[in-house]
Amino acid sequence: MDGKRIGILTEGELLTLKAKMAHGVMRYRKDVEAVIDKSCSGGNVRKLLPYVNKNIPVVADLQEAIELGINELLIGVAPPGGGLPPQWMNIIEEALASGIRVANGLHIRLAEEERFKKYKNNIFDIRYSYVPKEVAHGRAAKLKKNVILTVGSDCASGKMTTALELHQCCKKRGMKSDFIPTGQTGMYIMDNGFAIDTVLSDFMAGAIEDFVCEAAIRNDFVFVEGQGSLIHPAYSGVSLGLMHGSAPNIIVFAHDITRERLAYFDKAIPTLEEQIEITERLAGYQRSCKVLGISLFAAGMERNAVEEVICEMECKYGIPVFAPLVTGCDRFVDILEDYR
Amino acid sequence: MDGKRIGILTEGELLTLKAKMAHGVMRYRKDVEAVIDKSCSGGNVRKLLPYVNKNIPVVADLQEAIELGINELLIGVAPPGGGLPPQWMNIIEEALASGIRVANGLHIRLAEEERFKKYKNNIFDIRYSYVPKEVAHGRAAKLKKNVILTVGSDCASGKMTTALELHQCCKKRGMKSDFIPTGQTGMYIMDNGFAIDTVLSDFMAGAIEDFVCEAAIRNDFVFVEGQGSLIHPAYSGVSLGLMHGSAPNIIVFAHDITRERLAYFDKAIPTLEEQIEITERLAGYQRSCKVLGISLFAAGMERNAVEEVICEMECKYGIPVFAPLVTGCDRFVDILEDYR
Repeated sequence: MDGKRIGILTEGELLTLKAKMAHGVMRYRKDVEAVIDKSCSGGNVRKLLPYVNKNIPVVADLQEAIELGINELLIGVAPPGGGLPPQWMNIIEEALASGIRVANGLHIRLAEEERFKKYKNNIFDIRYSYVPKEVAHGRAAKLKKNVILTVGSDCASGKMTTALELHQCCKKRGMKSDFIPTGQTGMYIMDNGFAIDTVLSDFMAGAIEDFVCEAAIRNDFVFVEGQGSLIHPAYSGVSLGLMHGSAPNIIVFAHDITRERLAYFDKAIPTLEEQIEITERLAGYQRSCKVLGISLFAAGMERNAVEEVICEMECKYGIPVFAPLVTGCDRFVDILEDYR
Repeated sequence: MDGKRIGILTEGELLTLKAKMAHGVMRYRKDVEAVIDKSCSGGNVRKLLPYVNKNIPVVADLQEAIELGINELLIGVAPPGGGLPPQWMNIIEEALASGIRVANGLHIRLAEEERFKKYKNNIFDIRYSYVPKEVAHGRAAKLKKNVILTVGSDCASGKMTTALELHQCCKKRGMKSDFIPTGQTGMYIMDNGFAIDTVLSDFMAGAIEDFVCEAAIRNDFVFVEGQGSLIHPAYSGVSLGLMHGSAPNIIVFAHDITRERLAYFDKAIPTLEEQIEITERLAGYQRSCKVLGISLFAAGMERNAVEEVICEMECKYGIPVFAPLVTGCDRFVDILEDYR
């Protein structure tokens, strides 16, 4: 088909954390034409979501998006567990019946739903596009290349954005770099990677090992999108499987300084010192590894305030701190250059 | 159907670690009638595998097992990753064609293999018998009951045996106890539980949380079979998902003292002190938790030698050490009684 012209369905959730897939896709892809969300219709994403930094109109329904010429509908919310709000099924059917491809980032397999079976060639169940075949063999731990994993203090704390921004910065500077998405958002942005949360748990480490070893053949820097958090009640297993399968020698710790408790759980986040220490220890069981920097997220904070926090944190933790979306990644990539 | 009369196919692997499912099933079930394994045919399990401690004849092929009256064939090897040796397919077909039910503990779904589809009602794909629906909500961490998880220094280091022996000992003493298997062996022994390694990784913690909360309603002690090891290159993610989903307040550390390196990986096992410390720390993120004892495995060691090691280890680590299969569990359950 011609190039994609994407419409994203966020129906009521555009401004919430549940729409983080939509936010990431809008920020990093250049072919999003419309967001479908009655709660903000008539608005523009540039104003509604400064993080995205793109002119994308918000429309009230699928028909308006079709009038704007979309040829692919992305289901753009990713609530914990990935269930699909029942009322969305009609919109999806309407899109498929109009010949629009549907890309789905949720845990549900749309192509296997009875009512969508006849459209299954036009459905892309993102999370199920990769099926691993092998458990891990510890191969990544033996690599001589740099594997840089992002680890975070919670879900949605900037792990994908950090890895992707660092990768793009390295590329721009002519370094041999690759980025491996491990979630549906990164996969959809890059047309690459796999969704580790949808892999059978025995194969988590084996799947990322495969991707990392493949990427390391032609690159000096392999950035791996981390998932969840090592202290998270629901997702810590995925975080550790990803860590031990990818066997990083460098970790960047992604932290949202505006958050003191887990986003979906009423639970305090331990201190950064403690998290960094246990992160290095656990990673060290596979390959000697250091948390080389902290990547800061602080939605809504002014540049001056962010720079002040960076200064304080660098003193406190003794490692470089950067805010990819505010101060950029160049200062940190200067340090990575020494690992070339 | 009438009671099971089980034949176990181990074909050449009866005496290896790959047949650990067969070993566990033979030890704990009372209805295994034959093992099919040419490499030891004519022998008896009591002599070949002291751990099992049962009179079970080893026969050369399926026909001999059928003559002994089996009505269920268990695929009794569980190699890493769970693939099925191709040459076994014919034996399975022969069994199904003879009206014998086939129970399969491997990752492959036999019921979905083209050649077995017509027999699918007679196939039990053990690992796929439970489908979780929810991610974890941190519910287990709020329980007031005792949740006892076994954590180990490697695969096949006695985690299932320890949990099961402790549970049986508690039952015998009239304590309200349940045991939740999390692997195919325990599931097949108990007709309960689920295979955590075959759950989509996002649902690992949610699945065990469900089982634990359900079991805690009617019991004071819920024993959870641990999996893998927190330092394992391939399975650490499963271990941590299980730990954080079940949120134990008590951990028993299962350790095979004859092993200094991981069974399937050329990798040293860290010291017990270190493993116990990191185990308590990681568990503590969900619920205050203590490693209350060490469960010792030492295949082939004499009772006297085991008792000597126990004595040394109790001095060294300052916590109770017991060898479930040598010295029994009573001394350790005495301590658990205080938690009633």
